[in-house]
Amino acid sequence: MNIEISDLIDLARGAAFLGTGGGGDPYIGRLLVQQELERGRRLVIVPPESVDDEALIVPVATMGAPSVQIERFPSLNPLLQALAVIEERMGRKVGAVMPIEVGGINSTLPLAIAARTGLPVVDADGMGRAFPELQMMTFNIYGCSASPVVMTNDLGDVLLVETQSNDRAENLARNGVVAMGGGAHIALYPMTGRQMKASAIPGTLTLALDIGRAIAQARAAPEDTFAALASHFAGAADVRHFRVLFHGKIVDISRDTLQGFSAGSLTLEGIGEDAGSSERFEVLFRNENLLARRGGTVEAIVPDLICILDGETAEPVTNEALKYGQRVRVIGMSVPEIMRTPEALAVFGPAAFGFSEAYTPFGA
Amino acid sequence: MNIEISDLIDLARGAAFLGTGGGGDPYIGRLLVQQELERGRRLVIVPPESVDDEALIVPVATMGAPSVQIERFPSLNPLLQALAVIEERMGRKVGAVMPIEVGGINSTLPLAIAARTGLPVVDADGMGRAFPELQMMTFNIYGCSASPVVMTNDLGDVLLVETQSNDRAENLARNGVVAMGGGAHIALYPMTGRQMKASAIPGTLTLALDIGRAIAQARAAPEDTFAALASHFAGAADVRHFRVLFHGKIVDISRDTLQGFSAGSLTLEGIGEDAGSSERFEVLFRNENLLARRGGTVEAIVPDLICILDGETAEPVTNEALKYGQRVRVIGMSVPEIMRTPEALAVFGPAAFGFSEAYTPFGA
Repeated sequence: MNIEISDLIDLARGAAFLGTGGGGDPYIGRLLVQQELERGRRLVIVPPESVDDEALIVPVATMGAPSVQIERFPSLNPLLQALAVIEERMGRKVGAVMPIEVGGINSTLPLAIAARTGLPVVDADGMGRAFPELQMMTFNIYGCSASPVVMTNDLGDVLLVETQSNDRAENLARNGVVAMGGGAHIALYPMTGRQMKASAIPGTLTLALDIGRAIAQARAAPEDTFAALASHFAGAADVRHFRVLFHGKIVDISRDTLQGFSAGSLTLEGIGEDAGSSERFEVLFRNENLLARRGGTVEAIVPDLICILDGETAEPVTNEALKYGQRVRVIGMSVPEIMRTPEALAVFGPAAFGFSEAYTPFGA
Repeated sequence: MNIEISDLIDLARGAAFLGTGGGGDPYIGRLLVQQELERGRRLVIVPPESVDDEALIVPVATMGAPSVQIERFPSLNPLLQALAVIEERMGRKVGAVMPIEVGGINSTLPLAIAARTGLPVVDADGMGRAFPELQMMTFNIYGCSASPVVMTNDLGDVLLVETQSNDRAENLARNGVVAMGGGAHIALYPMTGRQMKASAIPGTLTLALDIGRAIAQARAAPEDTFAALASHFAGAADVRHFRVLFHGKIVDISRDTLQGFSAGSLTLEGIGEDAGSSERFEVLFRNENLLARRGGTVEAIVPDLICILDGETAEPVTNEALKYGQRVRVIGMSVPEIMRTPEALAVFGPAAFGFSEAYTPFGA
């Protein structure tokens, strides 16, 4: 399908939703795509099953502090350079690009690269949301090598990592980001079309577009915005459980910067339909929202999605933008089965983030 | 010239001398060379002027904490892997290897690689001694690019750095060492024979061999060991100023680990011919010895060599091995003019190490 300029706001909104509070702001990536489309370039999203088994698929992204990314990478050149290095190292041409994550800034950046290069972008990703680390991907879980990992910056520096361990690839690349200036462009997990079909989470770019559109349409609906949203997802072909977990006012935000992550928690006091609740509602996050609980009871836990939306407009709010007194609704949404296998949970389930709580599938 | 097993002890001793207290212990490298020679392999050192202008010359080394290196790299395989990556990246075969520094462990390791691969090793290096950073080389000073820099470890991981700035290459590689496990093998500054002739310090491997032999012969001489050494250098074809700066007993050692460096100072009280001296003698070091002064007066300063030898046997002592009460003689030795130009002093002169003292050529 072709993506038009008029789709971009919805797509970015859906990506912010799927970012579950982290992943950086899709805004800058959206502007870069828009710029390409305004120049007359086309952006084509292709379904995973249409991709040739032998084609070389390369996920592209930025890595590092979102603020550094936004300030330092208004240009696509470093990412084009990273693709060129991957092509040279693999000895073949890239057939399509793909997001590593569909949440946040990294959902829109591959679209800009696709438009610039004329390559299609695969409607799939490796996280189905946003996660902080490079091994937290279905690409890793289902047998792809992250290497060669190519990182570039706006100074023309290149850092190439090759290792048999995707955990070490994360470690080596993370270290590299600091030396690259705090943020870098990155191309990694080069894979064949066949590997992509076996390891990627399908349909996530169109999911982002669908979520963004659904929010816009729900605002215009005669009934309550959140009720309209809920009925949209209840009727969707790709059945995702969707529920408003809490309607509340932020009464406490605690944030620490921990090993480069923004870690902390959010406490809400019930308003509206939850006004009578004597239990406080709490969301724990490390970049992304990871655990939501009411009183002591877990309502949703990673990898399922915990999204904080403006209490009236349902606009997704990143954790960086949350403020004391703000009125929000917390949403729970299920992720597909490919993200809930024992192999997947070992990599990005509760224990991977240091939680002792067991994983309970949201909506089950 | 061929290097035989019987040369290795002298060569390593000379490399320890040129290490001026730092650079790591040449012992492990020597054992690796010996192993190769015992297997019947040959080691050929070739003079720089005999190298073809178009040949690809690749300096090889280890980087990181010497103790980590010694524990973790008894194998040559990581360095062979690094050479293979360099060859692939450069699209041509390596014609000869070369040390990056002639002091310490990195002087002997390239010899082991040369013996293993059958490649010649060029009788030259980029430091003429030991220095702690990758841009502190005449290769950098006289126009060679450090990139591509290839780092490897014993896990088979590869880190490749490409940057137009040799300062950033140092920074990116230094960061990489940590993530590689504290120590790594490294191949860098790939250059043509022509570039090598314009940027390398010639004759430094044979200088190490000559120094090591001179010390052994001076011990056997009928006169005083240090007097015999001094007359050896006074008569040498490559005129180096050589002088015993002080004969003393260590009365204080202060050491700090500073950003991965072992920085500190050494205080000596005169004995023997310096027994009457009321002035204390002091050596400041950061890995390598950098400044020697008697009372307040500078006697020798970086890049000239300040070497601490056992007070009787003239065996070089690394700073790690120095002990309170030890009797030593401090030697000053001049470096060649290629290391004393304004361009060279800007990179590894006193100011590069934070000293406000001006450079005064030793022996002038």
